[in-house]
Amino acid sequence: MKEIVLGLLGLGNIGGGVWDLIREFGDETAKRTGVKLRVKKALVLDKKIHGGKEVPDEVLTTDKNDILEDPEIQIVCEFLGGEQPAASMMLRALENGKSVVTANKMALSLHFDELRAMSQKTGAGLYYEASVGGAIPIINAIQSPLIANHLEQIMGIVNGTTNYILTRMAAEGAEYETVLKDAQRLGLAEPDPTADVEGYDAAYKLSILGSIGFHTRVRVENVYREGITKVNSEDIAFGREMGYVLKLLAIGKDNGESIEARVHPVFLPADHPLARVDGSLNAIYLYGHSFKDMMLEGRGAGDAPTASAIVGDIIQAAQNAVHPMPVMRENPLPVADDWYSKYFIRMKAKDEPGVLAEVAGLLAKEKISVSAMMQKDAGPDGKATLIFITHSAPEKAMQRAMNSLNPEITKVENVIRVEE
Amino acid sequence: MKEIVLGLLGLGNIGGGVWDLIREFGDETAKRTGVKLRVKKALVLDKKIHGGKEVPDEVLTTDKNDILEDPEIQIVCEFLGGEQPAASMMLRALENGKSVVTANKMALSLHFDELRAMSQKTGAGLYYEASVGGAIPIINAIQSPLIANHLEQIMGIVNGTTNYILTRMAAEGAEYETVLKDAQRLGLAEPDPTADVEGYDAAYKLSILGSIGFHTRVRVENVYREGITKVNSEDIAFGREMGYVLKLLAIGKDNGESIEARVHPVFLPADHPLARVDGSLNAIYLYGHSFKDMMLEGRGAGDAPTASAIVGDIIQAAQNAVHPMPVMRENPLPVADDWYSKYFIRMKAKDEPGVLAEVAGLLAKEKISVSAMMQKDAGPDGKATLIFITHSAPEKAMQRAMNSLNPEITKVENVIRVEE
Repeated sequence: MKEIVLGLLGLGNIGGGVWDLIREFGDETAKRTGVKLRVKKALVLDKKIHGGKEVPDEVLTTDKNDILEDPEIQIVCEFLGGEQPAASMMLRALENGKSVVTANKMALSLHFDELRAMSQKTGAGLYYEASVGGAIPIINAIQSPLIANHLEQIMGIVNGTTNYILTRMAAEGAEYETVLKDAQRLGLAEPDPTADVEGYDAAYKLSILGSIGFHTRVRVENVYREGITKVNSEDIAFGREMGYVLKLLAIGKDNGESIEARVHPVFLPADHPLARVDGSLNAIYLYGHSFKDMMLEGRGAGDAPTASAIVGDIIQAAQNAVHPMPVMRENPLPVADDWYSKYFIRMKAKDEPGVLAEVAGLLAKEKISVSAMMQKDAGPDGKATLIFITHSAPEKAMQRAMNSLNPEITKVENVIRVEE
Repeated sequence: MKEIVLGLLGLGNIGGGVWDLIREFGDETAKRTGVKLRVKKALVLDKKIHGGKEVPDEVLTTDKNDILEDPEIQIVCEFLGGEQPAASMMLRALENGKSVVTANKMALSLHFDELRAMSQKTGAGLYYEASVGGAIPIINAIQSPLIANHLEQIMGIVNGTTNYILTRMAAEGAEYETVLKDAQRLGLAEPDPTADVEGYDAAYKLSILGSIGFHTRVRVENVYREGITKVNSEDIAFGREMGYVLKLLAIGKDNGESIEARVHPVFLPADHPLARVDGSLNAIYLYGHSFKDMMLEGRGAGDAPTASAIVGDIIQAAQNAVHPMPVMRENPLPVADDWYSKYFIRMKAKDEPGVLAEVAGLLAKEKISVSAMMQKDAGPDGKATLIFITHSAPEKAMQRAMNSLNPEITKVENVIRVEE
């Protein structure tokens, strides 16, 4: 039996969940793996105020050096969240030869290169299964059992808050603001929901998935990002009439010439595996040249599911002779700033002759062809609703077409990309 | 760069797929993992007749000892299928210190203890990701990222042929025999379909999943097994009216006192994640005490998806310092011969007073209570169709109740278990 000595940076929800899982299930895990885990120190801000777990006083510390500089501690688990001081502490732990396990997508995404370089330099492992998709073993799958694949597509529902909001909007025909307030009341959305609803959280996660899956550094600032705040119940209802379900997706594609990396609302055909992943669940759909299509679905958040991933990582860090390390391509592909997609366009237009011809003409000028069109009778405002579904067209061409419309006559209410 | 020398036992569909994946993607895999794969020998029955791949003549051999007894060969991949000589060859390879990678659920299930013991004795690894669920990394997930969980449930669609047949029966209202013939014509079912349609294939796979997931040896002969040959379009149609979808599931449960292991048709609520896994796809739903619910879905068969899993295993066998080895409980739970389930019962009964009272009385005698009931008008034969859905009840009590019905008056057409 090998004893592994751990230091925990943070003892809040996730740290407390890990403490509980090790305390309650550590003996069984040791029987299964030959690795016995012992938490030597846990960093807290105040020894009197922490996650509320019954942690012996001698384990608690307010000095990070009790963890980062203690040669007995072999693995450091980081649960502080946010960019700093988390990133610096992880870097220091790696520098001191300690493997690092983290759930921190932000620090990892922003400092991926430094952390990776330090890990390579000292041979300490860097593990981050819990940073994307909670308990879902997506990082492990990409790096190990699916490694012998040219990964062509990653499409993920990686933010539970927005999926919960969209699921309820679809089920109840409710508006975004109403459901958001309810989600906040239930603790499913933060008081400041920006990181979730504007897609920042998903963009960090896509940056990580893309970097390891495509062997090309996908920086979060190169991820196209659009949140769900503009989506309304009309879009969802019209989409449904046309057989689509609305999801906020993190999309990564290796199209051979560039890497697409984008987070935005997407209409999916109702029979797509991701279309029926509802509520706060997470799911990641993958396409690889050899395994073909695959989907992994599970709990993307919560103390216990996150702890499951963290302890899984700790055991791997303890057992692996070779720590997984994403190898970047020698000739990295650029991250695309244009891509092909189909589009759902909802617009309001004056109900008069020539309007449809104008819209159709502008789309045609950009070589965008229409695959379906629906017109709803004008309401009391004299404006008719027009819905177009286009064939695949470049993003930039679509944006040019939309910008060239005369807003006096046709007002674009929303443009939503359609994936198949 | 570490070179790993491989021997392939068999060069048919799967062996050929592995040959292709290594040839086409081996250099890229080597860059990513530091492990360069070289196939030294491939065992074939006849050097002139094999999978049709362009394999150099010096690689082919008809002598198994060229692989099993060659000290240069480090990893042996077994693609022969069937129990023997596959099991003996794997045993010999392990005995000689060579790690074994296999897709052979039958040999593995039947010789699990011997193979495991030999692997432990010599320290050679035993890898079998491709034996269940094709490319889906289910074995890896249970043994590594999800190891720190008390696994409570495994429910899988692990046989693509039967899922294809049931999907088409549901979509078309067609009968089993018709769809089976079509599946045979399309190459989706074997000329002798017994192994698939009678649930043997699924039972082998459940034996493997259960043994590693529950840390209790689940022998295939202890798996309750019932195939899909008795299912008809009426069952599927009535089930749908009540909100259910029919699937052939491999079900493993750790109920705390015993291990349930059973393969049989199941009605699932239409919103269960497994309910919409259609066609020849495979999916495994898991419930663990920490990660909660999870589902992994993908291609359960096919040369390329299987090769993806095999090469993933080879790389792990080459890199791992500690080969994964399912540890069995010191006090193993028995495999249950009785269990609780809800039931869908379809019967034909004479349309006369007292029949319903008799059936209800016999169910009541076994303390089985009814949660829903539906009666369809008698047809020209004067027989009415009765459908019951029961509350949860012991399997044996249900069988006693059904056996005590008077077949002159009420004929049980089918009993299908209902899972939630």
